[in-house]
This record gives sequence, structure tokens and C-alpha cells, in this order.
Amino acid sequence: MTRTLPAAAEIQAALDEAWRIGRDRCGDGRVADYIPELARVDPSLFGIAIHTVDGQCFSAGDADYRFTLQSASKVFSLSAVVADSGETVFEHMSVEPSGDAFFSIVKLEEEKGQPRNPYINAGAILTSSHLPGETADQKIRHFRTFLASASGMDRDAFPVSEAVYRSEADTGHRNRALAEIMRHHKVIPDVEVAVETYFRQCAVTCTAESLARTSLYLANGGKDPLTGKRLITPATNHGVVALMATSGMYDEVGSHAIEVGLPSKSSVSGAVLAVAPGRLTIAGFGPALGPMGNSIGAMKALGALAERLELSVYR
Amino acid sequence: MTRTLPAAAEIQAALDEAWRIGRDRCGDGRVADYIPELARVDPSLFGIAIHTVDGQCFSAGDADYRFTLQSASKVFSLSAVVADSGETVFEHMSVEPSGDAFFSIVKLEEEKGQPRNPYINAGAILTSSHLPGETADQKIRHFRTFLASASGMDRDAFPVSEAVYRSEADTGHRNRALAEIMRHHKVIPDVEVAVETYFRQCAVTCTAESLARTSLYLANGGKDPLTGKRLITPATNHGVVALMATSGMYDEVGSHAIEVGLPSKSSVSGAVLAVAPGRLTIAGFGPALGPMGNSIGAMKALGALAERLELSVYR
Amino acid sequence: MTRTLPAAAEIQAALDEAWRIGRDRCGDGRVADYIPELARVDPSLFGIAIHTVDGQCFSAGDADYRFTLQSASKVFSLSAVVADSGETVFEHMSVEPSGDAFFSIVKLEEEKGQPRNPYINAGAILTSSHLPGETADQKIRHFRTFLASASGMDRDAFPVSEAVYRSEADTGHRNRALAEIMRHHKVIPDVEVAVETYFRQCAVTCTAESLARTSLYLANGGKDPLTGKRLITPATNHGVVALMATSGMYDEVGSHAIEVGLPSKSSVSGAVLAVAPGRLTIAGFGPALGPMGNSIGAMKALGALAERLELSVYR
Amino acid sequence: MTRTLPAAAEIQAALDEAWRIGRDRCGDGRVADYIPELARVDPSLFGIAIHTVDGQCFSAGDADYRFTLQSASKVFSLSAVVADSGETVFEHMSVEPSGDAFFSIVKLEEEKGQPRNPYINAGAILTSSHLPGETADQKIRHFRTFLASASGMDRDAFPVSEAVYRSEADTGHRNRALAEIMRHHKVIPDVEVAVETYFRQCAVTCTAESLARTSLYLANGGKDPLTGKRLITPATNHGVVALMATSGMYDEVGSHAIEVGLPSKSSVSGAVLAVAPGRLTIAGFGPALGPMGNSIGAMKALGALAERLELSVYR
Repeated sequence: MTRTLPAAAEIQAALDEAWRIGRDRCGDGRVADYIPELARVDPSLFGIAIHTVDGQCFSAGDADYRFTLQSASKVFSLSAVVADSGETVFEHMSVEPSGDAFFSIVKLEEEKGQPRNPYINAGAILTSSHLPGETADQKIRHFRTFLASASGMDRDAFPVSEAVYRSEADTGHRNRALAEIMRHHKVIPDVEVAVETYFRQCAVTCTAESLARTSLYLANGGKDPLTGKRLITPATNHGVVALMATSGMYDEVGSHAIEVGLPSKSSVSGAVLAVAPGRLTIAGFGPALGPMGNSIGAMKALGALAERLELSVYR
Repeated sequence: MTRTLPAAAEIQAALDEAWRIGRDRCGDGRVADYIPELARVDPSLFGIAIHTVDGQCFSAGDADYRFTLQSASKVFSLSAVVADSGETVFEHMSVEPSGDAFFSIVKLEEEKGQPRNPYINAGAILTSSHLPGETADQKIRHFRTFLASASGMDRDAFPVSEAVYRSEADTGHRNRALAEIMRHHKVIPDVEVAVETYFRQCAVTCTAESLARTSLYLANGGKDPLTGKRLITPATNHGVVALMATSGMYDEVGSHAIEVGLPSKSSVSGAVLAVAPGRLTIAGFGPALGPMGNSIGAMKALGALAERLELSVYR
Repeated sequence: MTRTLPAAAEIQAALDEAWRIGRDRCGDGRVADYIPELARVDPSLFGIAIHTVDGQCFSAGDADYRFTLQSASKVFSLSAVVADSGETVFEHMSVEPSGDAFFSIVKLEEEKGQPRNPYINAGAILTSSHLPGETADQKIRHFRTFLASASGMDRDAFPVSEAVYRSEADTGHRNRALAEIMRHHKVIPDVEVAVETYFRQCAVTCTAESLARTSLYLANGGKDPLTGKRLITPATNHGVVALMATSGMYDEVGSHAIEVGLPSKSSVSGAVLAVAPGRLTIAGFGPALGPMGNSIGAMKALGALAERLELSVYR
Repeated sequence: MTRTLPAAAEIQAALDEAWRIGRDRCGDGRVADYIPELARVDPSLFGIAIHTVDGQCFSAGDADYRFTLQSASKVFSLSAVVADSGETVFEHMSVEPSGDAFFSIVKLEEEKGQPRNPYINAGAILTSSHLPGETADQKIRHFRTFLASASGMDRDAFPVSEAVYRSEADTGHRNRALAEIMRHHKVIPDVEVAVETYFRQCAVTCTAESLARTSLYLANGGKDPLTGKRLITPATNHGVVALMATSGMYDEVGSHAIEVGLPSKSSVSGAVLAVAPGRLTIAGFGPALGPMGNSIGAMKALGALAERLELSVYR
């Protein structure tokens, strides 16, 4: 359902105001330090971009700064997997909030290797192992092809940062632990392929601009409104977006729903991707994170935007 | 924001179809048996009612059968408390999904008596203890006054079922345990007042008809669209509804978001209350519950309605 | 099996040395403050007493200072219950270490109200509810009769401290929570009787002197070696003592086994009761507790005694 | 302290009786199936051996059947590590019972990668990584040298079963997960070296005969009574044995203390090693395991032996 959009001038004005509000909060956060390569990023970076379903785009600040997708990749890998093989990935995965930290292994042990949902790390690793292809290389190629297809760009627009990939592969011990537990319970067939794919997918780069563009299908029932290309079915798209609302923001999914009211997916690189169904997508980027691992600036900016443009799905 | 409503005939047709779909599933569920008085209810009962923000009402089946609010009461007690004393109730309560069963005491111990959110039992008991008044009697009177105010009816429309209240008070040991843990951490001042209030509020009765009517303010930014009376501020209303989306359906909040896509609150008496912001409210009632404690028929009927009337907030 | 005892002079010399070592450590600890009445005790108090199976007694320091039994009562209530009704109490209780804090409710919920062992609070409350008698009064009378019988004294030697009892009853919310969870699972029949009994049994008073004397049967296969009276069967006695070794020292059962090597039971009032099977019992008393809630002085003194007198059962 | 030993004829008679009792229970258990190679063992095998500190040895049944050490290796790797580098291994490890299954990763995550004790898998993997040497080969060589030294035999008496090692390495995903979590918290330096060492140490083979012989130092204060060779200090030996009493039997440490009363270490290959300090060691072997993963026959036989020969340390 296409819904009424605010006028372009009002969108740009709201975006500029939201950008200022978000940028002013960056000083309160810290860049992620558990992946060494991410720790080098400038915490004062801040950008934001909007794409509307009728083809307008707006941006402010560092909207063309290139960063790694990290957990924002999870919505696209899920889309790509379900587009390819339907609901199979959910045979060993639930769709409920975990109530624990995104890296937690506790419920995974208690629940026999079945991840709670595709947006916590365990679930995303399982999803990655379902990407078409035998090897991590083939899987990542497919993943980047999906991004290209969704964005109307080509795969080169989404290069992998080798430095970040290396850094994650070297330090991703908790993710390997999750994969080992899933392998024990025969939920994934191969630990190495699964985590290699996951680490590389997290290291795929984009900008706030290209992230908002790539996710436009999520605001349009699974079809890119600009190229007319269908990425996933309406029902699948509904599920992918609904899960963002219930499990997309780690341990701040409730407060984000209250403050913003848009299905969103955050990443430790500082991105927060938000979907206003039928209208637009927003990608905020600010690497300064709050205590729960979400970008402080991006969350604040999204709150301001949602308020001024009346975007919340709960109002 | 008022949104376009389907034509009345289409709503009634969709409702009739949804009612049939829901009713046909009742045989797959079981009535709650942990409260003896609830175990006596006929599992084949099934009704559903819709109220629109422009004043239309629709119903099907046992929409005027009287049942106890149980957990559906939590959205109203939260509304009443925040209307009275603002955000104070959140000083010792979070707003995040718990990831555990609604009665679970595990996180409450780990998190020093601070409930995860107002829609699990611990959080609801804390909320009840914040209702205005010293005694349970005074608090319940205030609660029923809020219902009367929200529904445009009077308090007598919401009598307490003494039999159910007795039954819950006699068997509510887990709820008492939650209250004792909160009392230990000084999160509530008095165990007896808190649980008495909670047990009685759960035993307040309504019908699918009156439940949908009473919650109409939730679909209208906190103001009853029919009487024009403001119950809570727009911001508070947004929070109450957003929390239904992230924590309103126990351990099925994710699958309900996927299947239905409406902020909802379920109860063990078999009610599921759903809010389509800007448009309408729906109250399904079918005491046959699925394995997670939610009404099987009501969830199915809501899914059918949301699909046909394109109500999901995520599409 | 009676084993060789060191000479009396050597025991007294070892005791004096151990007392000095223990007393010097009291400054490192703090009195329990979660029961207000206990918080008033002088943290520099320190006494220790030994009773041998051949009837000798030794003491040092504040060995006749009167304190409440608290958790040390658990070995006697277990003895009394099993003496009266055999293994019935274990129908709903395991005998394994919990790995969690003594007050924890987590495993109790996970394991359907069945306490891990009789020396954590949940298990002790269950045990108390099995004491003969209908009312808490009758049960406590039986409990004190058991103490009298075991010690060769009369019941008046074990008065209840009304002040401490009041204090515990007023603040024992976590214990009430444990009892409510057990009641929910029908593991105990009556919350109030169970916790009342437990609170009073914890408030029964003794001295290091009388505590060592009372427990002499534990070092002698269940029969008081001085009066010749059999309290419990050899097999039961073996179990009561074995459980002290695996679950008697809260979260320090492993380090206590390493440092001391005697089956022991500690209490928040500052007592540590140790059994050297076939030889003697030791009761240390020092209300200054370490971070795990065990008497710092008593643990150190026991370590010194066990070393010098070669008492450890593991050497 | 050397204690009185029963006469040789009585020991042999008790052993024969215990063997019959144990063998008769083998039908109630099942061989471990989570390591494929172990699943092939004949469940009716049953043997038992005793070595006394004065040099006598006794055996019954399949006491010379060769099996893999599995978790029984943990007491020797701990001995070897502490002999080599003192208490360093405990800088990142506690000594308390875990209360959870031996493979559990839950507490490891909650407690920042610090294992609860050296006899659960996580603690044993940490211990293995402390064995002298850079590579797994060097570490295993050192481990087998320790066994040789303790037994008065040579290293060839303790060959590694390559088939079992392969089987464990291929399926040991939970153990790898534990190591990854410890690596994340920098508790171990290298996952691969740690788990390789652990898998091989578990695959070292012995017989009930040689196992009882090898562990004789544990009953004699850390010195082999037959060769006079000191393996570990008396204090270290006390700790190694004390930990067997509190954490050596997985989730049956309490019931084993009650039924047997000897510090013991079990293994999934069906061994139970028990130490009667100052007197003797016993090694039971019966691959039919009970529900908690301990040899049913060996536990029963140990109970009978302890009873008849009055071996329990708690009596």
C-alpha cells in the first residue's frame, strides 16, 4: 500500500534537523572495540539518507561514507535465502525475541542449537549457511548479487573490506562457538563455511545512501519500486520487516519501538536501517554506539524524523 | 492519523470469514487449566468484534459472551497508571522483550527485581501497585473507572467475577513469588496490596464487543474518537501500543507479528486485542488456547482479517 | 569407626593457635546485613569449640556467646525429619550441588519446584515443612526437642530469639518466593506454615560450645557417643554428613574442601560446624563474613586446625 | 596418614561380591553414543581393580580390558599441570561445583570464560592448555610421561587410541565451543592446541588394573607408595582429591557421596576411579552408563565395596 508522503522540502528540512540532533549526541557514545578494525573509525562521523518509494532521495552529513554492513546484512541474507529456498531456513530457527544479548549462547544450548531468530548472531550464521553455493566464496557472491539486484547497482558497489573481514575472522570466537553448538545439534553442516560466509557478509561495505536505496523493496512489499523488480514475495517481505520490529535492535527493540516506531535493524558499525512501509527507507550512520551497541546518533535522529514526519507505524 | 477504512460491507464480510476460520481452529486448542475457574469455560465459544475510529461496530459469533480480562487488563492498567503519574512506573521496569515465559522469575532475580516490561506478569503486578489508591479496593475502583471512561460506559459494565478472582487468589503462587522478589528489592512496597489488585484486575469482566470499544483510544492517539475524551497523551499512547507490538503476545510475539502484523495483547481467558492505528480495534475471543497460551482461534481470525483488509502495520 | 585422637594438650594447643589465626582475620569480613537484627552483632566476636567422641571438650574465645543457628539448623532439621519419616522428604528434592547462590530461585523454577538439596534455602524450607506437627509451633517444638535429645540438654538450652525471628519474618521475601514456587508445584502444602517454621528454626539460639556438642552424633554414625542415644540410622547419618561435604558451604564448598577437608555447614550468623567422622566435631563462630557469606575467621581457623591435627578426610 | 587395611582375603571377597552386584546392573545402562567410536563397546563388559598403599592388588572381571581414559584423565592432567607450574591454572578457573551438565556452556558465558572447576569439560580443556609444551604433541607426551611416572610403568603402557581420538576430534563441537568462549575471554591462547590436546588425552588408553595403579599416589599424599616417587606436593594432592569429592561425578556428585562416600572421578568410557585416602584406590570399569553419564555397574560396585570394607570418608 503506497501511503501519502510529505512534501520534499519538508522531508529535507526534517532530515537536516534530525541530522543535527543525531550528530550532537555522537559524543555520548563509543565506537565498537571488540573488532579491532572497527575501533579505528572516527566517532564523530554522522550521516543519514532517505529513499522514498516514489524515487526521491535525500541525504545529510556523511551519507556517502563507506562502512561495513555488519548486522544490517542480516535482513538481506534472510531475504536472499528465503527468495532462493523459501521457509527451509526456519526448520531449525524460531522467530521470537531472545531477551538475551545478540551474542549469547545460553538459549542456543538450552534450545538444542535452534536460534531464536534470524537477527541474533546465531540465527544469522544459520541463515548464511543457507545462502546458495557450496563454498563461502559462492555464498558471498550470491549475497552481493542480491544486494546489486535490490539496489539496481552492480556487485562492485558492495565490495568486501578485507581488513575488517580479517579482523573479524581473527577475533570472532564467540561466533565460532555459536556455530560449533549448532553443528553439534546438526543445525548447520559445516562450521567453517558458515562462519567464513558470515564474517565476509558482515564486511561487505555500503554507504548510508546505498543502504537506504538497497532496502527500498522492504518498504514496498518486496518489489523494488524504481526498477519494478520483485526481490521477495509480499508475504516474505512482511515477515522480514515484522521481525525487524520485534528483534531488529538487540536489547533496545522495545525502547526503539517506543521512541521511533519503525521496524529497524542496527549494526555495530553504526548503521540503523529503518523501514516506513509504503513510504520510505532511512539509513542512519554514526559509529558512536550507546551501551546496548546501537548507534546513539542514528537512534536519536530516527526518533526526530519519525516524530516530525509522523512515520511511526504505531500511531 | 486517521487512515482510509474499507467499506462497511467489506469489513463485515471479512469479519464473517475470519470468524469461520477462527472457529474452525478452536478444536485444536485447550482452555487454560492453571486457574480452576477458567478450566470450566466451553472451548467452542468463539466471537469477534471490530470498532472503527469513525464509530462503526461489527461483530460475529459470541461477541457478547462475558469473560475475564486477564492479561488484556495490562494495557489498561498501564494506561491508567501513566495517565495518573507519568513515567514513574518505569523507574524500576524495562521495556524490552523478556525472551522467557510470561510467568518466569529467572530474569527478575538476575535483574534485581526489575521486570522486563509491563506486559509480563511481574511488570503488570508492579504496574498494578502504582494504580492510585492505598488499598486494593481503591486501586481496582480506579482501574474500573478508567475502563468506564475509555469505553463511554459506566463502571457497572465491568464487574469483577468473584469466582474467578477467588480462584486466582487461591492458586496464584507464582505471581506471589514474583511480588516477593520485587518486594525484596524494594521495587514494590507491599506484596499483598499488589497481588490483590492484580488478581482482581484480571477478574474484571468484559465482552469482545466492550473490549474492542474500550480500547478504541489506542487506535486514535490516546483520545476516544467517539466521546472526544483524551485518556492518555499521544506519546504515552504510542508507547503503550508499541509495547504491544514487541511484548504483547508472550512467546509468540514474533510469529504473531509475521502472521498478523498488528500490535496485540492476548490473555489466558482467550481474548486477543489488536490495534490498527488510525483505523480500528479488534477483539477476538476464543478460550481454546494453543501451546503458548494464546487463543488459537483469535490468532487465526486476526491473521485472516489483517490479510483481507490489509491492516498490517508492516506492509 | 572410632579413630585415634590427638592428645588433649595437642588439641588445646592447636585450638588456641587456630583461634588466634581466625580472630586475626575477622577484620576482613562484614556481618550479614540482609537481616537487620543480625547486622547489630559485634564483628570482632570470635570463638571456637571442639567436642570429641570420647567426651572431651575444648574451647577458645567467645565459645559461649549465644547466636542464632540460621543455616546450621538445616542439618538438624534434616536429621529430625528423616528420623521421623525416612526418605519421604527426598521425593521432591535432589541431593546435588546447585551451582547457584543459596537463595537462588532460578533452578527451582527450571526444575518444577524441586530443590537441588536440603542445604540451600528452598530445600531447607521443604524440609521444615516435613517436621512432625500441623502448625509451625508444633514443628518448632519437635525441632527443639531433637536438639535437646542430640545434645543431652533440655529444650530450654535452645531458646528462639524473638527479635531475630521477627526480623527474618519481616524481611524474608526471597524465602517466601521460594516457598510460593514450591507451593505452585505442590511440593509443599502450605506456604505460611513452611516459612514460619523455617524462620523460627533459623532463630533458635546456641553457642559454639552447645553447637559442637549437639552435633556429636554426626561424627559417630548417628548415635550420641556420650549418652548412647541413637538419633538417626548410620545410613542416614552418612547421607547427612556427605551432603555437608558436597553442599554445606554455599558457593565455597570446593575451596573449603581444599582448604579444610571436613564436611561442614555454615550459617550467616557466622557459625561453621565441621565434622571429623569417628573423632570430633568443631564449631567456629565469627560473625564477620567473607564475600560468599561464610565466616572468614571460622573458615581460617578450621583450616589451621585440620592441618595441624591432620583431620581432613581427603588426606 | 596410613590407615588400617582389611585382610587380603576380605578385600578379595568384598571385591568379588561387588563385582557381581555391579555386573548384574550393567543391563540397566547404555554405552555412550555421542562419540561414535565409544558406541561400539560391549555394554556387558565389567571389571574392577584395587591397589592398596602397601602394594597389594586385587581384581575381578574385565580388569585388564583396555579402554580410553576420557574424563578420568582430568585428575592426571591437573596433577601434571600443577606439578609443573603450581597454581597458575587457577588464575582463570574456580573450584566450585557447576550445578550444570559437564558440557554446559551457560556458566562459562556468564562468568566471562572462567570455568567452574577442572573436572568439567571447560576446566579440563583449560588445564590441558597448561600442560608443558608448545604443541599438542609435546603436551600429550608430557601427559603420558606423567602417567608413566605415576604408575611405575613406561609411556607405552598408555597408548593413544587413534580411532577414538579421530572420532572425538570429528564430533567434539561442544568442546570446541567451550574453547572458543575461553579464547574470546583470553583465558586460553589457542583453541586448536587446547582441544587437540584434550581430545588426545581423553583417548589415552588404560585398564582398570593400570588405572588403579596409576592413581595410587592420590591415596598417599601425592607420593607413589611403591616406588617412593613424589608426584605432587601433599597440599596439591589434597586439593586434587578434595575436588573429586565435590565435582568428580558430574550431576551425581551428591548421590555418589551418599551412596559411596569416596572422592571419585567418572568417565563416559565407563570408568569410575575412587580414592580411599591412606588406604587404597579402586578402578571400576563398565561401559553401560546411567542417565547422568556415569557407569551404573561401577557406581553400584563401589557402593557395595565401600559399605563392606567401611571405606567411606564420611563415616
